[in-house]
Amino acid sequence: MRFLSETSSEGVCEQLFTLGEIPGVLWTPQGATGTRPLILMGHGGGHHKKEPAILYRAHRFVAEGGFAVAAVDVPGHGDRPKHEEYHRIATENQARAAAGEELAPLVAGFQALVARQTVPEWRAVLDALQECEHVGPGPVGYWGVSLGCGLGVPFVADEPRVRAAVLGLGGALASADAAARVTVPVEFLVQWDDERVPRDRCLALYEAFASTEKTLHANPGKHMEVPDFETDSALRFLTRHLCP
Amino acid sequence: MRFLSETSSEGVCEQLFTLGEIPGVLWTPQGATGTRPLILMGHGGGHHKKEPAILYRAHRFVAEGGFAVAAVDVPGHGDRPKHEEYHRIATENQARAAAGEELAPLVAGFQALVARQTVPEWRAVLDALQECEHVGPGPVGYWGVSLGCGLGVPFVADEPRVRAAVLGLGGALASADAAARVTVPVEFLVQWDDERVPRDRCLALYEAFASTEKTLHANPGKHMEVPDFETDSALRFLTRHLCP
Repeated sequence: MRFLSETSSEGVCEQLFTLGEIPGVLWTPQGATGTRPLILMGHGGGHHKKEPAILYRAHRFVAEGGFAVAAVDVPGHGDRPKHEEYHRIATENQARAAAGEELAPLVAGFQALVARQTVPEWRAVLDALQECEHVGPGPVGYWGVSLGCGLGVPFVADEPRVRAAVLGLGGALASADAAARVTVPVEFLVQWDDERVPRDRCLALYEAFASTEKTLHANPGKHMEVPDFETDSALRFLTRHLCP
Repeated sequence: MRFLSETSSEGVCEQLFTLGEIPGVLWTPQGATGTRPLILMGHGGGHHKKEPAILYRAHRFVAEGGFAVAAVDVPGHGDRPKHEEYHRIATENQARAAAGEELAPLVAGFQALVARQTVPEWRAVLDALQECEHVGPGPVGYWGVSLGCGLGVPFVADEPRVRAAVLGLGGALASADAAARVTVPVEFLVQWDDERVPRDRCLALYEAFASTEKTLHANPGKHMEVPDFETDSALRFLTRHLCP
């Protein structure tokens, strides 16, 4: 892991890093030393590790919860080069959807393919981050919606260091098998009028989690219109489960 | 309004009262003076104004939020005499359900009937409580699930002093028309494995609220198994909307 830069803003230290080919960012409380809970965040499709939805929440998780927070670019996103195979499939899927084919199964298959790469990548990032003195081997949480849910569910299922996860805006097609292996507490976001993920598929994914504690939070509005009070709720949920 | 008794426990003052035929209880912070937000709580079917589910939450709302909290016995419940007509209908409904008839429509009709009495009763209780120096004309919230939802939805719809409501464990059959007149923020509880209210009816009631802000919180488990962290959430929700 190589740190490329370090800046600070309003008490939050931001370090850009690379781990092999993976560009990432780590946020920690300014001047932090010693072990602390770490939240890995998965960004949305077509976005990147520092998209506003990630940046805003990461700053709040660090400033208000004292967490370390990290995000990395998904292949073909952000600072990573175009991924020829993924790009070809995504382009084909767009054409098939434009021709009338149902989009959800296409997206599901695509996310499952990408997850076979991102799950081991994210585990390697966890390994490296937990070697840092100001992160350390503390409990780990995950936050990711939309693409960050599609890739997050298999990650949470396969990574025993993750003890709690905020997921959502994703459907069962992509992730039901992996969800059945998730046993940690889950807070699951549903947008009631989601124009991208059919409501019944969202409810089916919530249903599929094997977790004893799993809470579904549904709110009116479209895919991108999650109300801000859900950030408060996510912070409390992650604090409750990661901070003894 | 006549106060019958006053006791205190752990910083919470409890006053039993009657308003005409209606027995009620008011909880306030010990030594409270002046206007404060008031939460009216509706108890469950077969229970009463001081059932443990009410008492526990009322104490927390007072002790942690500084609210005034009140609950009254529904006709035929608690300290009220048997209500011959309601008792006859409830007994008939039990017999019809035992004979194989679907329970939900019977319960819905029954709750609609009772609400025609409880809505004006509860409004009168609000009038009287807000005359008390240690309650005053502050903002009002409502908390009620199960029967407290069936009776609460028409109350919240008809009472403009109510600015936010926690409802749930109830279905659309009983309350959809009234729900369509509810415009205040709602936090709505669903038990995913509710053995008394079909899940799709709960989701339909959530759908029916006209409120711009309405959050559905679903959790695994049966009708009576709402997890305790939903009390934390209700307290925060009511505080956010009632305490400027």
